[in-house]
Amino acid sequence: MSYQPEDLLYEGKAKRVFSVQGHPDLLWHEFKNSLTALNGVKKGEFPNKGEINTKISSAIFRYLKKNGVNTHFVSELPPHVIVTQKLKMIPLEVVVRNQVAGSLQKRLGLEEGALISPPLVEFYYKKDELNDPFVSEAHIQMMELVTPSQVESLKHMALEVNHLLKSFFEKININLIDFKMEFGLESSGKIILADEVSPDTCRLWDKTTNEKLDKDRFRQDLGGIQSGYTEVLTRIQKQGEGV
Amino acid sequence: MSYQPEDLLYEGKAKRVFSVQGHPDLLWHEFKNSLTALNGVKKGEFPNKGEINTKISSAIFRYLKKNGVNTHFVSELPPHVIVTQKLKMIPLEVVVRNQVAGSLQKRLGLEEGALISPPLVEFYYKKDELNDPFVSEAHIQMMELVTPSQVESLKHMALEVNHLLKSFFEKININLIDFKMEFGLESSGKIILADEVSPDTCRLWDKTTNEKLDKDRFRQDLGGIQSGYTEVLTRIQKQGEGV
Repeated sequence: MSYQPEDLLYEGKAKRVFSVQGHPDLLWHEFKNSLTALNGVKKGEFPNKGEINTKISSAIFRYLKKNGVNTHFVSELPPHVIVTQKLKMIPLEVVVRNQVAGSLQKRLGLEEGALISPPLVEFYYKKDELNDPFVSEAHIQMMELVTPSQVESLKHMALEVNHLLKSFFEKININLIDFKMEFGLESSGKIILADEVSPDTCRLWDKTTNEKLDKDRFRQDLGGIQSGYTEVLTRIQKQGEGV
Repeated sequence: MSYQPEDLLYEGKAKRVFSVQGHPDLLWHEFKNSLTALNGVKKGEFPNKGEINTKISSAIFRYLKKNGVNTHFVSELPPHVIVTQKLKMIPLEVVVRNQVAGSLQKRLGLEEGALISPPLVEFYYKKDELNDPFVSEAHIQMMELVTPSQVESLKHMALEVNHLLKSFFEKININLIDFKMEFGLESSGKIILADEVSPDTCRLWDKTTNEKLDKDRFRQDLGGIQSGYTEVLTRIQKQGEGV
């Protein structure tokens, strides 16, 4: 099937989202080369990032779909487009953490890299102007962002995706430290994994050297951003998408 | 019974805590006149604050005790000392909110004064050098600060204290907007309400005028701090401790 973009609906930090001609139930996601961190204060760009993240995210969505996860992924259109289902987005970022890093380390004074078992699930309220504040389940209920049973489903799905992704990355000698997910609702109410899964949204450390292969190379001015992301893609391609 | 302070164990922002001669199971809390806010960045002092908070906190502890709440309160020694049980302190601040104010308003972009029903319970990890970060129940489990059943007990006790205090303050025409509690454990494992309950730890608004009668007068440079605190004490004394 051939898809064509129509109207620009939304331009974010790393993506432009369009409607799809003749398909009101689909969206066209164009992955940009730009990178932002610290809630947009730090900006950068590197060639092929959009292309690399399109490939990685598509490979991961195909893998998750094959393993029974409901995702919004419909089709990859190289070099830098993914066509997805259109969903009613849930205004939460769901983070799963297997090892301590990033804001968790800073906020709670924990040791970077310390194992977290069982994995930790966190929720952040998606609101750019508030810098996506961390919220508890009590806040989610107070603001009626989702129902209590939807919170339980989100936690369950997040941990299931984490379980699958940990094993996906382990096969290519990478530790999945933590990652961020977004979910949406089908009109039936079914919860679907949306957004992207890429080195922009995951912390990925080489299992042998602990080298960072993700957006922290940018956040922490480590250099070699492109080679980090490319390394992840190369390993996924060699592995044949973790099948 | 007459108590005498022995060794200074701890000096905090608003209190000095001593051991008690001949009573290894008790503590001597001396309420200071100093006030700090914004995690110690803002400092102030006003005469009689220690005395006023000793009287208010004692009156509230007596009221709670009479209504079946386990508190650490043993005895008020005017003008500015409370003798309490010595407990193993739980490193959490437990906040209950009935209306939106303070950090909740700022973090989540909500309207000041909006009603919260049912009341919201929040936990903060007590750690000065981290500025007492807000934590979820999942963080509490991860750090093993208390057990899951202790978290349930803390929530239950916090809501019970809130219920009693709301009615205590309503009788003197004050809305209890939110307040902070700390709890400790007896050697038996029983959870006991500790610390203090005063205009330093509660947001108290006049029911008719919405005038702030608490530490926000200091935080927000509203002036009249002493008259706000004194007004709360005067109303409590007139009411005969809400009996």
